[in-house]
Amino acid sequence: MADDTPSPFASRGSPQDVETGLELTPRFDAAGLLPAVATDAQSGEVLMLAWMSAESFAETLATGRAVYYSRSRRRLWRKGEESGHDQLVRAILVDCDADAILLKVDQRGGAACHTGNRSRFFRKVGPSGIEYVGTQVFDPEQVYGRGASAKSEPAS
Amino acid sequence: MADDTPSPFASRGSPQDVETGLELTPRFDAAGLLPAVATDAQSGEVLMLAWMSAESFAETLATGRAVYYSRSRRRLWRKGEESGHDQLVRAILVDCDADAILLKVDQRGGAACHTGNRSRFFRKVGPSGIEYVGTQVFDPEQVYGRGASAKSEPAS
Repeated sequence: MADDTPSPFASRGSPQDVETGLELTPRFDAAGLLPAVATDAQSGEVLMLAWMSAESFAETLATGRAVYYSRSRRRLWRKGEESGHDQLVRAILVDCDADAILLKVDQRGGAACHTGNRSRFFRKVGPSGIEYVGTQVFDPEQVYGRGASAKSEPAS
Repeated sequence: MADDTPSPFASRGSPQDVETGLELTPRFDAAGLLPAVATDAQSGEVLMLAWMSAESFAETLATGRAVYYSRSRRRLWRKGEESGHDQLVRAILVDCDADAILLKVDQRGGAACHTGNRSRFFRKVGPSGIEYVGTQVFDPEQVYGRGASAKSEPAS
């Protein structure tokens, strides 16, 4: 489990209850996580995919700021904690089997990626390899300091 | 592992190579899967989140039709195999650390969800529970047969 906090969410009923019910019964995986897709609340663009534990999901709901669980750092990851580029959550949607969620956010700073790209999905798979298709919003050295990108992997 | 097929993808280099390189080096998790977000190629709306094994990703690239790995059925899931509502893949993007992908698709039949909703994300988390915010495109009984939704959980 990502953390040993008791789940603040209701326990799950039948598949039909989960699909059509009006209670929030998220399904975390064996590691205690579920994937969360963050989109720009205005444009709908997919900004990133990250992970939430029950604790980070509950904190997101309580604070209105996106809090993920970083699998690489093995701890809660309050988006923007280093860069200041946090995400104000405008809406949260849950999918039919409640094992994935969708956040609609206002991304402070305009970029969700530590590389300075607006979206983390800035490369397209083409017939002869990968093409860069991103939108560079900031210079990561100005946000994280010189050499930052060479020192550490992104939280994810 | 989701399957024991050798990976058709290049092996991963340094974190910097993965982030900025122009070779496709997807990172599958311990179960051999990575999350794939499917969006409507025209509107950008997020339709669903599903999973891909190396085999399903390779078949998606080869055929241009979305092929996932169903964790509940434990096998390849050629989207639309029951309903006929397959997904024609218009573009595939990979995120910065190459452990998630984004598909832009044309969704045949107009709905990505077995419930007949256009998107699988048809419920919004509100202050007093969950609200239905979906768009019903078809009647699932007409596509899957009477009682289908009561018999089985969706592939996911």
